[in-house]
Amino acid sequence: MKSDKIILGIDPGTKITGYALISVRSNKVDIIQYGVIKLDKYKDHHLRLKKIQDRIKEIVTEYMPDEMAIEAQFYGKNVQAMLKLGRAQGVAIAACLEKDIPVVEYAPKKVKQSITGNGNASKEQVAEMIIREMKIQTKEDFYLDSTDAIAVAMCHHYQKGINQRSSKSWAKFAEENKDRIKGS
Amino acid sequence: MKSDKIILGIDPGTKITGYALISVRSNKVDIIQYGVIKLDKYKDHHLRLKKIQDRIKEIVTEYMPDEMAIEAQFYGKNVQAMLKLGRAQGVAIAACLEKDIPVVEYAPKKVKQSITGNGNASKEQVAEMIIREMKIQTKEDFYLDSTDAIAVAMCHHYQKGINQRSSKSWAKFAEENKDRIKGS
Repeated sequence: MKSDKIILGIDPGTKITGYALISVRSNKVDIIQYGVIKLDKYKDHHLRLKKIQDRIKEIVTEYMPDEMAIEAQFYGKNVQAMLKLGRAQGVAIAACLEKDIPVVEYAPKKVKQSITGNGNASKEQVAEMIIREMKIQTKEDFYLDSTDAIAVAMCHHYQKGINQRSSKSWAKFAEENKDRIKGS
Repeated sequence: MKSDKIILGIDPGTKITGYALISVRSNKVDIIQYGVIKLDKYKDHHLRLKKIQDRIKEIVTEYMPDEMAIEAQFYGKNVQAMLKLGRAQGVAIAACLEKDIPVVEYAPKKVKQSITGNGNASKEQVAEMIIREMKIQTKEDFYLDSTDAIAVAMCHHYQKGINQRSSKSWAKFAEENKDRIKGS
């Protein structure tokens, strides 16, 4: 059965970049694939960018996602680290824009809020929730960057769900918005 | 007559990105093409990145440069501005890495030093030197970002010249390195 939509989630970083593909079918979400691009073994910064580019292009070609959601940190103390992070983000975004895949950005706080209900949740709490909800069998070499990538893809799905309310059942909407429903 | 080398110079920015192509033939440098990608008319940040990507890919396909030199600022006061600049740089670098074009980065100070002999020269002073040396007929809608792009391409050429000494005549080398030659 064809998916309604495939969402690519990316958590870019210059040491490890996480990625995940989820499929949405009649509002049922499944994880197609997730993993990390390990970059810390490469000393050369340009080579790291090239590896991000190559891998994301491969993923885009193989799974043809309809939308891309990226976790984008906008604040940081270190200007040089932010410049490098910006480059990794730029390369990841470019690999999707090239194929006319719409890119939506989410702040880490927004992603955490959307998954755990708490914008200040730890990466571990986000992972725990994702693993439980999505019934993931974690691999041996498991990275939190990959659950972060699943989380941003899920966050994007929820956002769309809330914005385009028709895609969700009233029961689901009611359950999620108890404080907005009179008498609850 | 075939060029020994074509160098693409890029001065990336999220409002205006400058580019230039120079050809090096028996150490004679000619400007093939230069200009700017105007981005400030686009409100959407992703669209700006897409425009940088599209134009640089066009340039790379048309001129097949052998090397790319990029002016890369590493310091800035504003973390968010640096993140955005990093993205623009990342997209420009990715467009070249994709075609296996080696990318070399130069700090603005290094570029200014190499063109004017003064690392603290203004953009105007760099432009003046480039225009005079390269006998450029400036267009009506002239941008300093394009002379900056020529400057970084020239800077790269000079660097290579110094590193690979054989590509320059002794007279030229002596002229440029008076302080390294005994008795001068």
